[in-house]
Amino acid sequence: MNSFGRLFRVSIFGESHGRSAGILIDGCPVGLPLSEAEFLHDLERRKSGAKGTTKRRESDIPLIKAGVMDGKTTGAPILILFKNSDIDSSAYEQMRHTPRPGHADFTSFQKYGGFNDYRGGGHFSGRLTVGLVAAGVIAKKLIEPAKVEAEVVEVGGSREIEKTLEDALRKKDSVGGILSCRAAGLPLGLGEPFFDSVESLISHMVFSVPAVKGIEFGAGFAGSAMRGSHYNDEIINLQGQTKTNNAGGINGGLTNGNDLLFRVAVRPTASIAQSQSTIDMRNGETTTLSVKGRHDVCIALRVPVIIEAVTAIVLADLLFIHKSLWAKGGVIHE
Amino acid sequence: MNSFGRLFRVSIFGESHGRSAGILIDGCPVGLPLSEAEFLHDLERRKSGAKGTTKRRESDIPLIKAGVMDGKTTGAPILILFKNSDIDSSAYEQMRHTPRPGHADFTSFQKYGGFNDYRGGGHFSGRLTVGLVAAGVIAKKLIEPAKVEAEVVEVGGSREIEKTLEDALRKKDSVGGILSCRAAGLPLGLGEPFFDSVESLISHMVFSVPAVKGIEFGAGFAGSAMRGSHYNDEIINLQGQTKTNNAGGINGGLTNGNDLLFRVAVRPTASIAQSQSTIDMRNGETTTLSVKGRHDVCIALRVPVIIEAVTAIVLADLLFIHKSLWAKGGVIHE
Amino acid sequence: MNSFGRLFRVSIFGESHGRSAGILIDGCPVGLPLSEAEFLHDLERRKSGAKGTTKRRESDIPLIKAGVMDGKTTGAPILILFKNSDIDSSAYEQMRHTPRPGHADFTSFQKYGGFNDYRGGGHFSGRLTVGLVAAGVIAKKLIEPAKVEAEVVEVGGSREIEKTLEDALRKKDSVGGILSCRAAGLPLGLGEPFFDSVESLISHMVFSVPAVKGIEFGAGFAGSAMRGSHYNDEIINLQGQTKTNNAGGINGGLTNGNDLLFRVAVRPTASIAQSQSTIDMRNGETTTLSVKGRHDVCIALRVPVIIEAVTAIVLADLLFIHKSLWAKGGVIHE
Amino acid sequence: MNSFGRLFRVSIFGESHGRSAGILIDGCPVGLPLSEAEFLHDLERRKSGAKGTTKRRESDIPLIKAGVMDGKTTGAPILILFKNSDIDSSAYEQMRHTPRPGHADFTSFQKYGGFNDYRGGGHFSGRLTVGLVAAGVIAKKLIEPAKVEAEVVEVGGSREIEKTLEDALRKKDSVGGILSCRAAGLPLGLGEPFFDSVESLISHMVFSVPAVKGIEFGAGFAGSAMRGSHYNDEIINLQGQTKTNNAGGINGGLTNGNDLLFRVAVRPTASIAQSQSTIDMRNGETTTLSVKGRHDVCIALRVPVIIEAVTAIVLADLLFIHKSLWAKGGVIHE
Repeated sequence: MNSFGRLFRVSIFGESHGRSAGILIDGCPVGLPLSEAEFLHDLERRKSGAKGTTKRRESDIPLIKAGVMDGKTTGAPILILFKNSDIDSSAYEQMRHTPRPGHADFTSFQKYGGFNDYRGGGHFSGRLTVGLVAAGVIAKKLIEPAKVEAEVVEVGGSREIEKTLEDALRKKDSVGGILSCRAAGLPLGLGEPFFDSVESLISHMVFSVPAVKGIEFGAGFAGSAMRGSHYNDEIINLQGQTKTNNAGGINGGLTNGNDLLFRVAVRPTASIAQSQSTIDMRNGETTTLSVKGRHDVCIALRVPVIIEAVTAIVLADLLFIHKSLWAKGGVIHE
Repeated sequence: MNSFGRLFRVSIFGESHGRSAGILIDGCPVGLPLSEAEFLHDLERRKSGAKGTTKRRESDIPLIKAGVMDGKTTGAPILILFKNSDIDSSAYEQMRHTPRPGHADFTSFQKYGGFNDYRGGGHFSGRLTVGLVAAGVIAKKLIEPAKVEAEVVEVGGSREIEKTLEDALRKKDSVGGILSCRAAGLPLGLGEPFFDSVESLISHMVFSVPAVKGIEFGAGFAGSAMRGSHYNDEIINLQGQTKTNNAGGINGGLTNGNDLLFRVAVRPTASIAQSQSTIDMRNGETTTLSVKGRHDVCIALRVPVIIEAVTAIVLADLLFIHKSLWAKGGVIHE
Repeated sequence: MNSFGRLFRVSIFGESHGRSAGILIDGCPVGLPLSEAEFLHDLERRKSGAKGTTKRRESDIPLIKAGVMDGKTTGAPILILFKNSDIDSSAYEQMRHTPRPGHADFTSFQKYGGFNDYRGGGHFSGRLTVGLVAAGVIAKKLIEPAKVEAEVVEVGGSREIEKTLEDALRKKDSVGGILSCRAAGLPLGLGEPFFDSVESLISHMVFSVPAVKGIEFGAGFAGSAMRGSHYNDEIINLQGQTKTNNAGGINGGLTNGNDLLFRVAVRPTASIAQSQSTIDMRNGETTTLSVKGRHDVCIALRVPVIIEAVTAIVLADLLFIHKSLWAKGGVIHE
Repeated sequence: MNSFGRLFRVSIFGESHGRSAGILIDGCPVGLPLSEAEFLHDLERRKSGAKGTTKRRESDIPLIKAGVMDGKTTGAPILILFKNSDIDSSAYEQMRHTPRPGHADFTSFQKYGGFNDYRGGGHFSGRLTVGLVAAGVIAKKLIEPAKVEAEVVEVGGSREIEKTLEDALRKKDSVGGILSCRAAGLPLGLGEPFFDSVESLISHMVFSVPAVKGIEFGAGFAGSAMRGSHYNDEIINLQGQTKTNNAGGINGGLTNGNDLLFRVAVRPTASIAQSQSTIDMRNGETTTLSVKGRHDVCIALRVPVIIEAVTAIVLADLLFIHKSLWAKGGVIHE
């Protein structure tokens, strides 16, 4: 259940306040140059520091524990491990039975009968996205020359990002945001009909990113209000280029030669400094809770690099399937 | 690639104008009463007839070819076959090299090097959703007493559905729509962290339905404009009931004891009677095309029962996984 | 559970005395010529007629219900259906509660709480191997120019096949046999380390053939009695050719450039005309039973074409994985 | 490709002379007591020391890096890591282009274009079986009260194990062996028809253990020489108990209520101190090589605990599937 992919396959593991978090990657071709330094740029983008993001220092040093020799991938599974350090989880002990609203505290306690690691969200923590970002760094190399880029386009319903963040911070509140993601340079015809459509696989992975609550491709929800005569993208050449791109670069679940475009809705950060009502799971009684410590005012600001990563992971897998079965008729023997 | 599910698993097959369409279902428990008549209600809902839906008569008689004996499931795979009949595909021959805008004609031709069944969309046709609906009928029984219900809430950006359809029809145009879906009565804690979150699996299947271009859970895109203090759903009892349901019944990818709620954006029907520009794939030259025959003015009207079906398929699978691993601690021996 | 394969994927369905048996095949490349006539040769080899095989006429006409247009594969799933006909299942009704020794009657009744299709073994019947043979015909084309050939090398512990069969027939008894299978012309390096080793995947599929109880690669069990200095195959050229072939063409789970060789043990036919003891499942009391009708004296005689089929299915899948990930470094963009 | 299992799922990683080896385990129920100490007994059985096994000291300390809190499983994936230490791989550098006969050196070099980790077999090394043994320790707990036990029954074709080992050692040679494995206490009806038969899944995993070249269930190859009237196991009570156990406890791919029995053939250790011919992969010329260092005279002696482990892994997965779908009719809601 913690794995995804058919040929290029990632398996996630770890906890927020346990020993480690990380990812295991299977199906990576050989000879790909890979050093720990190459992960740092994207990991930095995911990290704390920018306004509205948490100040907590994290152990963001990726340790390549398997699958690489002499700086190149070997074809064997690649294990990337991030150690957790300097963790004070005492604050979580007192919250063990008072679930934070908007978090997985209540659902995971119920699902696992209280045996779940409750400290800082445990296995459900955003901490685990370090592994996704690391796998994304590899996937981005594999899909070259195609490129994936995501950015925040709206925060708290507003394009005035700075102002909105400051306002929320002052009110001890949090805000959500909307991201836009674009993949350019993909081959035509990527994806499979029905269950492995490009939209199916990308949305599958995008919703595995904590705090994501919506996705739309191309014109998306706004497109449902359009007339067909305006919505249909007119094909203008044999490369599949269209005049408009309301379909977000996908027809029939397959890439159509235009940029792949989608937007992602991210909910407001669940942890806020304001006092909130919740229940005590030992007796069902109402109690209040205010989440201590420094938290992201807007978790959406850290999400673009994660969305890029999961998108690249899906595209790498689709490219491998495509290469195997459909490119040049499929039959073999090189 | 044409299969989905871990324990309750569906495999789709068929073409619009080939011999048949249908579905193969694995992992259905024994002793479930099942007759061909039981499929008819949902198949009827998917069918033509209502204003704005095509008048074409379809062969919507499900034939149970395997997996059922004496009106009960046997534990073996269930094959449900729909024969195609009375099909005139001559109209498609002349369009073989002039892809209809908004359809999979161009992408599938390119992907499969022209070997794809091009008649009426072939394997990419909405015709294949008969199989999804049939599997959904079984899945709905398996998830009882939980219930899934979907409905159209908006057409062409308007809640005045009748008027919008008539207007589009008059203009030889088409419109999209928005659906709302609700699942009630689900156990708490369904779903898996990360890749098999409820959102991940539902969106995966929902985007396998032709014409779907967006999905949002709970407050979704609008929620990204909210403050955390308003967005967070306050838990009020040990059953997980919350005062609001902005999360759409899911926290951390797991059902939280409230109704599961999501909305789906459906693009306008691609086939319209108006003349449209496209290219001739033999030479890349611009040409025009108008799609003959009767077509749905608004395909969204036929989609609710399909969304219910794919949702029930996902929930049945999640229930089986849940029962196996997490219910009562997981260990075995009955 | 009734599916196998990662890219080239088969799903089996049907019953012995139900409406049909057959197979659904996903991941078949486009443009492969395929007619119903092409299946007949291998289906004939599986069929009744030879001495020691049952005289029962079967409906061995393959109906291609999806995935082929104008005699060529389209890239969509291929459904091959065999109708069951002329079936008298009344004989099975009286045996419903008296399980035939050596058959799945007892275990399937217990597993499925009596809801299983009990007629002639139901879903557990050798009848379903028609689907495997049909998929094998396609797989054999996909792995060309590689070839797979299997033959019976021993019957009832003896190489005097005719004599042994006549003797068993006279005594109303049955015999088992040993098969040898060889695949030639495979590329070097096929297979994956550990769980998808060539031996792992071939044995997985070979044991899905009813009545198979053993498999050994190369020198196999006899090899375990050898010294390493004699067992090790000396590599003599860059194509990997070895002086001996004790490893059966596989090192480290990967094809090594020599013929792939393995042997399969097939148990004696379970159905015999002699009277046998069993229990009545309604009360646990001992009773006797003699299996009426004509049965194979030696089921092993019908198995070679099925072993070829499942081997070709595995090899096709491994070739697709190999082509995708490892051939020429793995990266993409054609 | 380096993963196995549907609900209880293991993913293997690591290299012989890289940084680490280990296993990632998904689908383990919550609340299972688990400490690093509990792994030591089985790891010790796998280790060096006994006559005929290598003297090399290994770093066999399992580090639980994720999935366990306060000594109990949390439901999240369990990562078990073994660090490699004190490794002198200089000896392998000079052998890089002269593949050791019987090893994966030649095939893995060819498959991965020379990018594979060649040191001590790299990812293909028996070293990685530490991970399998560790996962087996967990699986054995999950299948309780069922038990799996394997032992060596023959070495070098002889039951005089000590004498055979001494003789081989004196001659700088190696020997193979045969193991017997028995699982007792399993529920009736475990396994799935066709592709997920008990034999299919067990053989799949057993052949992933390096050096295994054959498997037979119950009477196996010898059974193919028997008459049906002697081979068929007579059922004597409602628990499925049979007078004989020629079927090895499996009918129709399902457990039949008797002990599960199978035998495994292990080839002679590939590394021997004698000089052997091979080729230089740079030019194809013949050269000689003698494998330095201490090696197992008989690798089969270390294999029983690994066979137990992979068997328990398969059984745990089958138990979870069984519990979910077939136990008590399959439908849900606890």
